[in-house]
Amino acid sequence: MLSGELSVTTRSHMEMIDVTAEIAAIVQHNRIHSGLCTVFNPHTTAGITINEGADPDVQKDLVGVFQQMVPRDYPYRHREGNSPSHMMATLTGSSVNVCIENGSLKLGTWQRIFFCEYDGPRSRKLWWQILTA
Amino acid sequence: MLSGELSVTTRSHMEMIDVTAEIAAIVQHNRIHSGLCTVFNPHTTAGITINEGADPDVQKDLVGVFQQMVPRDYPYRHREGNSPSHMMATLTGSSVNVCIENGSLKLGTWQRIFFCEYDGPRSRKLWWQILTA
Amino acid sequence: MLSGELSVTTRSHMEMIDVTAEIAAIVQHNRIHSGLCTVFNPHTTAGITINEGADPDVQKDLVGVFQQMVPRDYPYRHREGNSPSHMMATLTGSSVNVCIENGSLKLGTWQRIFFCEYDGPRSRKLWWQILTA
Repeated sequence: MLSGELSVTTRSHMEMIDVTAEIAAIVQHNRIHSGLCTVFNPHTTAGITINEGADPDVQKDLVGVFQQMVPRDYPYRHREGNSPSHMMATLTGSSVNVCIENGSLKLGTWQRIFFCEYDGPRSRKLWWQILTA
Repeated sequence: MLSGELSVTTRSHMEMIDVTAEIAAIVQHNRIHSGLCTVFNPHTTAGITINEGADPDVQKDLVGVFQQMVPRDYPYRHREGNSPSHMMATLTGSSVNVCIENGSLKLGTWQRIFFCEYDGPRSRKLWWQILTA
Repeated sequence: MLSGELSVTTRSHMEMIDVTAEIAAIVQHNRIHSGLCTVFNPHTTAGITINEGADPDVQKDLVGVFQQMVPRDYPYRHREGNSPSHMMATLTGSSVNVCIENGSLKLGTWQRIFFCEYDGPRSRKLWWQILTA
């Protein structure tokens, strides 16, 4: 088992940041031939997802429609005012799994791995773990 | 580690297709006694989920309420017109994990594994990986 | 590989129950140094998520906004009347993955693992599996 941490600096209140190259470089640098890579988000107002990376408008649409779907004007009890960000974290999920085969991350043609900032801008972390097999 | 690919043919714009029997057959055919099975969807306008399989109306309700919840009339930027399908992909998630014990997939009484088509009909793939232990 | 089952008793129609201490105790009791812990929900009207545990108002907000977002008045076909609960199960996801390092579950500062009841009160189960490495 190998594991480590990535730093992610976000620059907006909400944005999706493509971290695929960093994860792929970890797999290559450690010469992992096959296994399971888990990328875990340790924050409660952020998430991690896999979606289209070719057109940046997709990421903008996802951020926009999240803001539309999760109400701002609900009578939230949590005093920090970021309950919608917590809701988006649960809707997105806290980790993704990607298989490693023949020395590479096995993603679909259009897939990229995105850190999802829902309460930024902030300095964030991602944790990765690779089970080799 | 074992891995492979399944083909899924969808026949509607949106539908859920039960793939449990195919995954269970892989476990049996390869005589896996125990481990972790990851089923991964490599498409960005589809997803994979575990939900009730006994009443097909549940699957129809899930598809219908996804269409209701994710707005069609939002001013999406992505020109392909399938941004709601990308949003559903992120809301659903890109993979499921199912434990294997005593030679079988360990699912709850009513649970089945579904490929979720959000921008069909199309020919799709699912990737599976089994870590034995 | 180690695996087992936890019992969870829910007392409301919808609520989030913090199960982190039980999962952490399993890791300690079995003296697992490092690995991957998968916690799996075997029910189709419940889910499992990782979110903030410090302020219980966050959990109440998540439950409340789920009820607001998933419509009650949609013309659902499923006769049991709990289609919104099935939808919440898919939106939340059926399992979480948490890494184990140096003998402990590796969670972010504010993160806790929650069983999400969407159709209670009931007696529920959670299944856990640990792949050691």
